[in-house]
Amino acid sequence: MQYGYFDDLKREYVITDPRTPWPWINYLGNEDFFSLISNTAGGYSFYKDAKFRRITRYRYNNVPMDSGGKYFYIRDEDTVWNPGWKPCKTTLDAYECRHGMGYTVIRGSKNGIEAEVLCFVPLKTQAEVQKLTLRNQSGTTKKLKLFSFVEWCLWNAATDMENFQRNFSTGEVEVDGSVIYHKTEYRERRNHYAYYSVNQPVDGYDTDRETFFGLYNGFDEPQTVMDGAPRNSVAHGWSPVASHCLEINLDPGESKELVFVLGYVENAQDEKWESRNIINKDKAKATIARFDTAGKVDEAFAGLRAYWDNLLSNFNVRTPEEKLDRMVNTWNQYQCMITFCFSRSASYFESGIGRGMGFRDSNQDLIGFVHQIPERARQRIIDIASTQFPDGACYHQYQPLTKKGNNEIGQGFNDDPLWLILGTTAYIKETGDFAILDEPVPFDNVPGSEVPLFGHLTVSFDHVVNNLGPHGLPLIGRADWNDCLNLNCFSSDPDESFQTTENKTEGSKAESLMIAGLFTVYGRDYAELCKRLGRDEEAARAQKHVDAMVDAVTKSGWDGEWFLRAYDYFGNKIGSRENEEGQIFIESNGWCSMAGIGLGEGLVEKALDSVKERLDCEHGIVLNQPAYTEYHIGYGEISSYPPGYKENAGIFCHNNPWIIIGETVLGRGDRAWEYFRKICPSYTEPISDLHKVEPYVYAQMIAGKDAFRPGEAKNSWLTGTAAWNFYAVSQYILGIRPAYDRLEIDPCISPEWKTYGVTRKFRGATYHITVNNPGGKMKGVSSVIVNGKPVEGNVVPVQPAGSVCEVEVIL
Amino acid sequence: MQYGYFDDLKREYVITDPRTPWPWINYLGNEDFFSLISNTAGGYSFYKDAKFRRITRYRYNNVPMDSGGKYFYIRDEDTVWNPGWKPCKTTLDAYECRHGMGYTVIRGSKNGIEAEVLCFVPLKTQAEVQKLTLRNQSGTTKKLKLFSFVEWCLWNAATDMENFQRNFSTGEVEVDGSVIYHKTEYRERRNHYAYYSVNQPVDGYDTDRETFFGLYNGFDEPQTVMDGAPRNSVAHGWSPVASHCLEINLDPGESKELVFVLGYVENAQDEKWESRNIINKDKAKATIARFDTAGKVDEAFAGLRAYWDNLLSNFNVRTPEEKLDRMVNTWNQYQCMITFCFSRSASYFESGIGRGMGFRDSNQDLIGFVHQIPERARQRIIDIASTQFPDGACYHQYQPLTKKGNNEIGQGFNDDPLWLILGTTAYIKETGDFAILDEPVPFDNVPGSEVPLFGHLTVSFDHVVNNLGPHGLPLIGRADWNDCLNLNCFSSDPDESFQTTENKTEGSKAESLMIAGLFTVYGRDYAELCKRLGRDEEAARAQKHVDAMVDAVTKSGWDGEWFLRAYDYFGNKIGSRENEEGQIFIESNGWCSMAGIGLGEGLVEKALDSVKERLDCEHGIVLNQPAYTEYHIGYGEISSYPPGYKENAGIFCHNNPWIIIGETVLGRGDRAWEYFRKICPSYTEPISDLHKVEPYVYAQMIAGKDAFRPGEAKNSWLTGTAAWNFYAVSQYILGIRPAYDRLEIDPCISPEWKTYGVTRKFRGATYHITVNNPGGKMKGVSSVIVNGKPVEGNVVPVQPAGSVCEVEVIL
Repeated sequence: MQYGYFDDLKREYVITDPRTPWPWINYLGNEDFFSLISNTAGGYSFYKDAKFRRITRYRYNNVPMDSGGKYFYIRDEDTVWNPGWKPCKTTLDAYECRHGMGYTVIRGSKNGIEAEVLCFVPLKTQAEVQKLTLRNQSGTTKKLKLFSFVEWCLWNAATDMENFQRNFSTGEVEVDGSVIYHKTEYRERRNHYAYYSVNQPVDGYDTDRETFFGLYNGFDEPQTVMDGAPRNSVAHGWSPVASHCLEINLDPGESKELVFVLGYVENAQDEKWESRNIINKDKAKATIARFDTAGKVDEAFAGLRAYWDNLLSNFNVRTPEEKLDRMVNTWNQYQCMITFCFSRSASYFESGIGRGMGFRDSNQDLIGFVHQIPERARQRIIDIASTQFPDGACYHQYQPLTKKGNNEIGQGFNDDPLWLILGTTAYIKETGDFAILDEPVPFDNVPGSEVPLFGHLTVSFDHVVNNLGPHGLPLIGRADWNDCLNLNCFSSDPDESFQTTENKTEGSKAESLMIAGLFTVYGRDYAELCKRLGRDEEAARAQKHVDAMVDAVTKSGWDGEWFLRAYDYFGNKIGSRENEEGQIFIESNGWCSMAGIGLGEGLVEKALDSVKERLDCEHGIVLNQPAYTEYHIGYGEISSYPPGYKENAGIFCHNNPWIIIGETVLGRGDRAWEYFRKICPSYTEPISDLHKVEPYVYAQMIAGKDAFRPGEAKNSWLTGTAAWNFYAVSQYILGIRPAYDRLEIDPCISPEWKTYGVTRKFRGATYHITVNNPGGKMKGVSSVIVNGKPVEGNVVPVQPAGSVCEVEVIL
Repeated sequence: MQYGYFDDLKREYVITDPRTPWPWINYLGNEDFFSLISNTAGGYSFYKDAKFRRITRYRYNNVPMDSGGKYFYIRDEDTVWNPGWKPCKTTLDAYECRHGMGYTVIRGSKNGIEAEVLCFVPLKTQAEVQKLTLRNQSGTTKKLKLFSFVEWCLWNAATDMENFQRNFSTGEVEVDGSVIYHKTEYRERRNHYAYYSVNQPVDGYDTDRETFFGLYNGFDEPQTVMDGAPRNSVAHGWSPVASHCLEINLDPGESKELVFVLGYVENAQDEKWESRNIINKDKAKATIARFDTAGKVDEAFAGLRAYWDNLLSNFNVRTPEEKLDRMVNTWNQYQCMITFCFSRSASYFESGIGRGMGFRDSNQDLIGFVHQIPERARQRIIDIASTQFPDGACYHQYQPLTKKGNNEIGQGFNDDPLWLILGTTAYIKETGDFAILDEPVPFDNVPGSEVPLFGHLTVSFDHVVNNLGPHGLPLIGRADWNDCLNLNCFSSDPDESFQTTENKTEGSKAESLMIAGLFTVYGRDYAELCKRLGRDEEAARAQKHVDAMVDAVTKSGWDGEWFLRAYDYFGNKIGSRENEEGQIFIESNGWCSMAGIGLGEGLVEKALDSVKERLDCEHGIVLNQPAYTEYHIGYGEISSYPPGYKENAGIFCHNNPWIIIGETVLGRGDRAWEYFRKICPSYTEPISDLHKVEPYVYAQMIAGKDAFRPGEAKNSWLTGTAAWNFYAVSQYILGIRPAYDRLEIDPCISPEWKTYGVTRKFRGATYHITVNNPGGKMKGVSSVIVNGKPVEGNVVPVQPAGSVCEVEVIL
């Protein structure tokens, strides 16, 4: 069952029933001011950091779900309704929500009035702009009362929901004409305030929540709205809100446009005040003036659309599969921008409180984003590397506001360092900007500790080399990519976190085959990079270590039909037929296959066939089998989940593309394609009622075959799945692969595809690539013709910036 | 305006309008299983620790407020209603909520059906028992459908509202007959589960929240209830709940009683399971069996009432003031039990997450509790002292579950150690149990570090002696009692906490006159104790330091008309006429007056007259004047609050009794009495609409004269005000004061009181004390007659345990 459809031309997902099986959201903003908005106008805004600079309040896991957001209440005679149906849930005559690229349009109609709300964060603007259009489609004159509503968060989203003995006494606002300013704590250390404005004189306002709603009323029946009478309340403590009231008369056929601006301002210390205790409003007024007519808003909106048109023109595909095209051309790339901006911090599953930017996550996110805005990727790489320690170890996360490592989460995840090699090489391959390697980058942000970025790659590589276990395989540390495989934790206390509690790493024999594969892949990349830099000695040294790792895997990492997952603290096997539960895992088989370890000896084929046989199911590839049915203190969090969920035999989508890429190593395009489709949201759209979350973005996890409801997805949006699937489909299925000095073309496709085309912008030139597959092959390029001339191999040389190049590929 | 009345006979506050100006709550339980319950059945339960063992879920600061609790939905034809009005808010024909001692009765009627819910935690029981009585008062047979409802918290109240990417996949339940078991995470490290039962076969159930409510419905319209059809859902992840459905037929005049039990069970590791993945239910079944008939419940309830009758018989007063009597005899003592149990952790203002048991708080709470259950006070003293460091410094808080010091909050509050002297001496004075001083008590809970408890008092005393500043006054450290006067913090970063961020104590000249007064009072107590123990040398040493402190205060702590508050980091005065804002403070004037410093020279009188003139207002005594209107980086959080709120010139009730006691030092009973009445909730009951919070318990803070709405109170229940006011009124106004070897009688009363009587149980004997005031005096005992015989002075010797003694006092 579907709840909407893709409008590919406009790049929108159109929701036609507000009762989606879960709130289906969108993100506004892509630099520093962000909003989350659901299809019923739920959600919140923040500036840079969802924890420390939460602008509006949101309650996660509320009853009903997704209560609270930015609401317009329309009072037409005795009927009160919202354009987005919620919170009043008055039955609408028409409803539509269009989630587009950085904007959302919600349109509702009731009793002859159509209300359309366009929300977006204009480029280079620290504000969300809302254009509300009211149209009288009835035959009579309408006298409406319109109430806007937002609820302020007291900035720190964590203490905002914990520390009421303080919070209920701190709230402060100013009301100045049609602008409501939220200035809680501005009197003291804060240099920032927020505001909510409308571009018309108001007929009243409210800023005190209890006055606006009444103590006993919900979002669905604000007392002032029900009474049609604003109280002009000025909040002192408790819970400040902002609501404008406007009386609007509309003749038949008439329409009116109103512009609301929800903004954020920072002032320098010596410019904080206009007069004693009156805030300096200059910056707010300047932003409001930029959007004080509908025409200015339309112009800014056109700018945003053009921005996205341009961004998405860097990679565009036309295949026989409409569903594939809409994901690759639009939604997957869009999601990659979102994961780049948010890492794992703020979604409808991530509360924006617990997690900063992940070292591991953000590096991986780059591989789906680097072709969009390489300059921002460059800065991100430097930010990430700056949190690294001199021995290559990493803070697992850093704070987006300070860019400092997050001590509370700590370190010791032994895969972390390697991802910096991935992120950096992906950036250089996209841009050719080898100069980034010379950038001075500190350790742990300590001034004076700077070394060239290249040095960070070296310590990343060596962190594995220096932390090998008894089989010569990488020690796993606190955990590898699978945060929940905690081999040194031995936690028996339910009040401690598996991720942060003290580990027993001393004397541990816990080794990871996943890191072994990862090291083989990115160790080779590192060696190749060294060669290109003329550092032949370092390249040889690196290659020696990689070769040793391959040997170690071959010798101690093969279980007969698949790769082991790990050795535990005591040196016992995990992911082996010898185990009762958890005999086979996806991660090690993915990475060792991607690394091609034992390819010649048939190990990769065996491993991937085992994956197919034991891990694949209707909805994707599960993480392990058999699922753990009991807690294993030596394995940690993985065995804490009920079977079929999350890391315990859930379909953890992030790692499915590793198998997909592994299949392309074998040339099995049909199987790669089958796996791709299973978890691709545009393909699961028809089962949206089961799938539950948005059909336009990837989810972190889909319940596996052992679960109560296999196929039910959770944790949409902020997942490495976005970047990895874009990477897998663009570079390994469609086979358009940037390299240091060329574009490689190496498709591995369904044999049923006869032809497809890709437009790829690469280092300033545009490549129109047509791939023809007359023989129904899955892999193997027969010929490449560039601008009418055949070239050697499957390689397109870098073309001059600004040029347009025609590439014809025959498999 | 009032919303109810006191039923003194039953010791209940009876709320007659569910629309109180704020949720008015009660506490159930007084040992380890606790519930908070509002007058509309909102609230939650936990076991021992409101953070780590939250049993049911609660959402603070929701819209509407106090949404979520333990609800009964009654479906009578098409009408659905709740006995407590909320959440359906169906207009009731009758409503009443009776909050009593450890129980609450909510009674509602609709369409001829009366539903009465009695909720309490039986003695020695890890469960809340709810007896629901349904009475058909109509003339027709009624076919009702009853739905119960609780929502499970996933145990850790903090991560429960933050970590949805995990939480939504972990939920697990079992349904076994009429019992719904919540066993999330029991599969792994938890040794505990919860359950919700009813003593009848059910006609259905639900355990999945979304199924029960529908995704878009609030607490006021559960889909299953509206449909009258339970779905028998079994939760897998998302949000587990528990709802029983019972079909109930009632003939005219018929009534039925149902018993629901919400319980908590811990199992030993080797007794966790009944069979594979099926929990061992033995303990739950045993508890359920204890309450499987209404008769058994009634018996347990009678036991609870008898328990409280007995507890409250230890101190009972009969004065000309009914409002005073009901506070002293019932509600103030009851609140003291609650603050003893909860410290500052869980109320409707304290979310149960941020704060453990306070070192300072819990010691002070003892002075209102020690006469109730001395054995529990004894254990508490040892628990508290066990967290102390060898140099006398203290963790500011400790965790109730582990009893270990809370590292996150840290230490350095230099008043903390002294309160241990107060708590311990108050205990010994009540009990005569000097042996507690010999108990071996560790430092920082380190085994092997034990010294006799007396040694902890010594290091407490010496911690002040060893931390004196340039004027010989105590260094303030991170802060003294006023957590918000942060003289060494200099915080300019809004993202850091004033309470926990690094302080600049090195080189600081910041001294506290409040600690100086505190040290004088409890230093003398320490010296007196030493003498009684025959430690004359130590007594002399202590006295010398106390004398030096008095000198230092006299020399450097007097501002001409009142006592200074402090010296700041740089050695500048705070609380001086030299300041522009914050010229006078309550704390130092309270403590130096209580210590009688400069009493003979008229300093105390001057100081208290200045307090009267500058700090007193209609609703109580504010903390400081003039309020800070700007942030002072050298003073910290105090200046972060808007004027009139909290520590910035709010009426911070905790410290009002210090002035009251100070006035009794001067013998001004009229003024002491005036101050007492101003903040005493039974006296403010008629302005409940302004006061907002419960009229039966003290609030931490009442908005001061500079505030927007002076007289509006916040943070009811968990405040040191409870203990301090009981201490002030019982020992300094009514003047019944336990001493090491006697009962002292030293009233200081309103001259209008002609007579009053006190019944006091003390060391096993009962004292019937009658105080006559024929001359309209305020202070000064003329004669004391014990069992018909005059005694010397104002002293009643300790009577034999079991005896009853008549004491007649004439002023």
